[in-house]
Amino acid sequence: MLKKMSFRFVTVISLVVLLLSACSTNSLGKETPKVEAEEIKTEVIPAHEGLNQEPIPLEIEHDGKDVYVKMTTQITDIEIEPGLTYKAWTFNGEAPEPLIIVEEGDILHFEVENIDPAIPHSIDLHAVHTDPETGFADIEPNESGVFTYPTSSPGVFMYHCATDPVLSHIANGMHGVIIVQPKDGFPTDDEIDREYVVIQNEWYKYNDLDDMTNGVPSQVVFSAKALHDGQPNTNGTTTALKDEPLTAKVDEKVRIYINNVGPNEVSSFHVIGTIMEDVYLDGNPYNHYEGMQTVMLPASGGAVVEFTFKEPGTYPFVTHQFNHATKGAVGIFEVTE
Amino acid sequence: MLKKMSFRFVTVISLVVLLLSACSTNSLGKETPKVEAEEIKTEVIPAHEGLNQEPIPLEIEHDGKDVYVKMTTQITDIEIEPGLTYKAWTFNGEAPEPLIIVEEGDILHFEVENIDPAIPHSIDLHAVHTDPETGFADIEPNESGVFTYPTSSPGVFMYHCATDPVLSHIANGMHGVIIVQPKDGFPTDDEIDREYVVIQNEWYKYNDLDDMTNGVPSQVVFSAKALHDGQPNTNGTTTALKDEPLTAKVDEKVRIYINNVGPNEVSSFHVIGTIMEDVYLDGNPYNHYEGMQTVMLPASGGAVVEFTFKEPGTYPFVTHQFNHATKGAVGIFEVTE
Amino acid sequence: MLKKMSFRFVTVISLVVLLLSACSTNSLGKETPKVEAEEIKTEVIPAHEGLNQEPIPLEIEHDGKDVYVKMTTQITDIEIEPGLTYKAWTFNGEAPEPLIIVEEGDILHFEVENIDPAIPHSIDLHAVHTDPETGFADIEPNESGVFTYPTSSPGVFMYHCATDPVLSHIANGMHGVIIVQPKDGFPTDDEIDREYVVIQNEWYKYNDLDDMTNGVPSQVVFSAKALHDGQPNTNGTTTALKDEPLTAKVDEKVRIYINNVGPNEVSSFHVIGTIMEDVYLDGNPYNHYEGMQTVMLPASGGAVVEFTFKEPGTYPFVTHQFNHATKGAVGIFEVTE
Repeated sequence: MLKKMSFRFVTVISLVVLLLSACSTNSLGKETPKVEAEEIKTEVIPAHEGLNQEPIPLEIEHDGKDVYVKMTTQITDIEIEPGLTYKAWTFNGEAPEPLIIVEEGDILHFEVENIDPAIPHSIDLHAVHTDPETGFADIEPNESGVFTYPTSSPGVFMYHCATDPVLSHIANGMHGVIIVQPKDGFPTDDEIDREYVVIQNEWYKYNDLDDMTNGVPSQVVFSAKALHDGQPNTNGTTTALKDEPLTAKVDEKVRIYINNVGPNEVSSFHVIGTIMEDVYLDGNPYNHYEGMQTVMLPASGGAVVEFTFKEPGTYPFVTHQFNHATKGAVGIFEVTE
Repeated sequence: MLKKMSFRFVTVISLVVLLLSACSTNSLGKETPKVEAEEIKTEVIPAHEGLNQEPIPLEIEHDGKDVYVKMTTQITDIEIEPGLTYKAWTFNGEAPEPLIIVEEGDILHFEVENIDPAIPHSIDLHAVHTDPETGFADIEPNESGVFTYPTSSPGVFMYHCATDPVLSHIANGMHGVIIVQPKDGFPTDDEIDREYVVIQNEWYKYNDLDDMTNGVPSQVVFSAKALHDGQPNTNGTTTALKDEPLTAKVDEKVRIYINNVGPNEVSSFHVIGTIMEDVYLDGNPYNHYEGMQTVMLPASGGAVVEFTFKEPGTYPFVTHQFNHATKGAVGIFEVTE
Repeated sequence: MLKKMSFRFVTVISLVVLLLSACSTNSLGKETPKVEAEEIKTEVIPAHEGLNQEPIPLEIEHDGKDVYVKMTTQITDIEIEPGLTYKAWTFNGEAPEPLIIVEEGDILHFEVENIDPAIPHSIDLHAVHTDPETGFADIEPNESGVFTYPTSSPGVFMYHCATDPVLSHIANGMHGVIIVQPKDGFPTDDEIDREYVVIQNEWYKYNDLDDMTNGVPSQVVFSAKALHDGQPNTNGTTTALKDEPLTAKVDEKVRIYINNVGPNEVSSFHVIGTIMEDVYLDGNPYNHYEGMQTVMLPASGGAVVEFTFKEPGTYPFVTHQFNHATKGAVGIFEVTE
């Protein structure tokens, strides 16, 4: 209901801008250039109209320390809330994108095929050292990019499209998580009974760079990415982790690998009805906290958070920035004996 | 003055929305449902009109490790800035709510009586492990809820009403702090001469879930909750900690237990004219920082911060997000020889 | 383009407010006072019209543990993006202000001359302990203030004007960095090959306290302050660190001293194509993290961050709150063999 309000609001502003386009601000402090109404982009670009490319599963093969990953960049409809479809810019037809898991020290060999017929895309992995101009280079439509990256630092890293304008590419859906497992593990590895991957992201008005830059999110959402067989693997939809809750048993120690991929907002991650016993900021074993009620995640920041449910029941998790929880950022754990 | 501006601004938008209600956004990316003007709620709900329930002091009794707490949920007028009264949804007629102090390992026995005649309320304590559906269950008007919770983790925890819509209940005033003292204390306990509890919260347009979800705060405020006899115990009012400053003496080590209860904004807590020698994030002794100018608090995040004033004088403290300080989030320490 | 949009947007709102000034909000929860259109200030104050005081270099002299600093407060035009000049309120004609470097334990002797003919200014240093009323006292136009402060805590500290309204003084440009070097150094000092100082700040509509308090930034920018001879020393301009990139060589360990001076926004600092090996929060050696992709900086928060580029190339750094990066907060490292 609230969201609908904000959609209408933007329409109104656009009209007012058109009607009053003869006015000019004249501040002595700033010069104000002219504005053309058509600068506001809120529509599907023509080449994407009617396009809905079937998700293509990510391919990943491990051969010793070498990891071979095949991805696509493509245009795929994502239902971001019930009945509301977003023609997302994606990797592999998911948003957030498929989970990638490797080990510290692995050598990553990426082949990214851009099957979007209209615009270039790219991949930027926070997990690696590379020259962005070559390692994260644009891939033109119907072309492929091949990249090799060594890994050397463990963490729960964001990856995303870094093609200009970057904000459009991320906000339209091109953000995911790559986990680099620490070669010596976490001090609490032996205590963990169950683990999940959760991602927080925001949605804005469709492909509207002005709203992405100056507005507030229309939806803020969590999704799960399957770390183990049988786990939910959802897109960033307001109801995803309510319709398909995560599960745990009483007294199990549960670990979540989380990243807040933004693109704009920070997150105050909190699990209702429990306390996070151990937290590793950005997923590095060195950055250890204990007994946290809420973890502060910057935009693109990650963490490993671990906690125990002591009674059976239904446990929501949220960003405790409650305007964002109200816009969808609520997931559920179903906990049984 | 600024705040008045934003009130008027919202009025204008509402009118424009009404006038142009025939327009429709037609983005190819998103379907846009209709908006009804009456969806915007900005008024006291009828059952609360004229209601101003006298504050009822919290009752707390310690019997060994058992702690018995009696609270009410009620509707009480709170002056949030001089001349501006907010018909707050509260625990016990305060907003933020009465301070609760217990020790790690205590068993909490809560009895919460909902004397609000109109709507259910509940209590959600970040300090405990419990099934939210039963431990934080709704209490209907004129009924009581009885809950038992063990504690096991020290910290400066938020508690709040968790009844749907949660954002309305928190933003209308139902947020407080429960401190769980660490059983082995803090490493710096012996150095502390004086200690206070401070809470940061935001206020929005009255009971306006749209403003709470999409707007900016009208006021951002600090309050003190009396930890020891004779200390100020104030509501979240723009002038509270200016009219009734906290006090300290030169060279004393001062500790503040702080929590930023939000509901939406993060805090950049800073004490002018000093540096925080020791900081324990979320109030857990393990999470130790030194020499901090400013502490980042997520929404619902806490900390123990410790510092020394080296000269007599008047020392403000703020969130250094200065738009919020401008809206009220300024407190004062009066420091004497 | 986006920024222009928001300028026009504010104009429209102002007009609408004028046209509908007869309307009144009547919420039962809040009283709504009248708004006068002239309350919105968006113009250069008359005494500053046509004023553009030549930058006056900061003077700093070290004599053993005594450091003598001479500064001015003055009105100087700063180009905050190409073709857009902001008549900034500054220290010494820079914005952000000149870098000050001292050592832990130094005694600072400041003489601040206010050559702004119209309004008082002051200096508030997060690096020191002092009574704000005297140590950070207002200096009237054409007068000087003399202040002495001991230092005792290392860090990357913000300094700023603290004259009322503080938000106007900071947002109009009066914010800088003072580094207090730790007397025992950082554990990683021996590994560092190259170091820079970077500052993030936001700009709002010119001297518009309403926009500063309730709006979103027009520009978010990085600047460099020369720590060593030959380094760039730039103002907070959208293109500053693109036109004049920072430089490094492959495999050098690079250190940045960073502070996010706000005034309002937090920062998610990230260097593309690398990982921060070592991070010291607020620049204190005790507050050590490893392997960070992104560092969360509160408003006025600092850090020392260290990283290595492993290939030659062009490496941008950003706040990963990408709406802010889109508004300018992008800098560049040029890395050669």
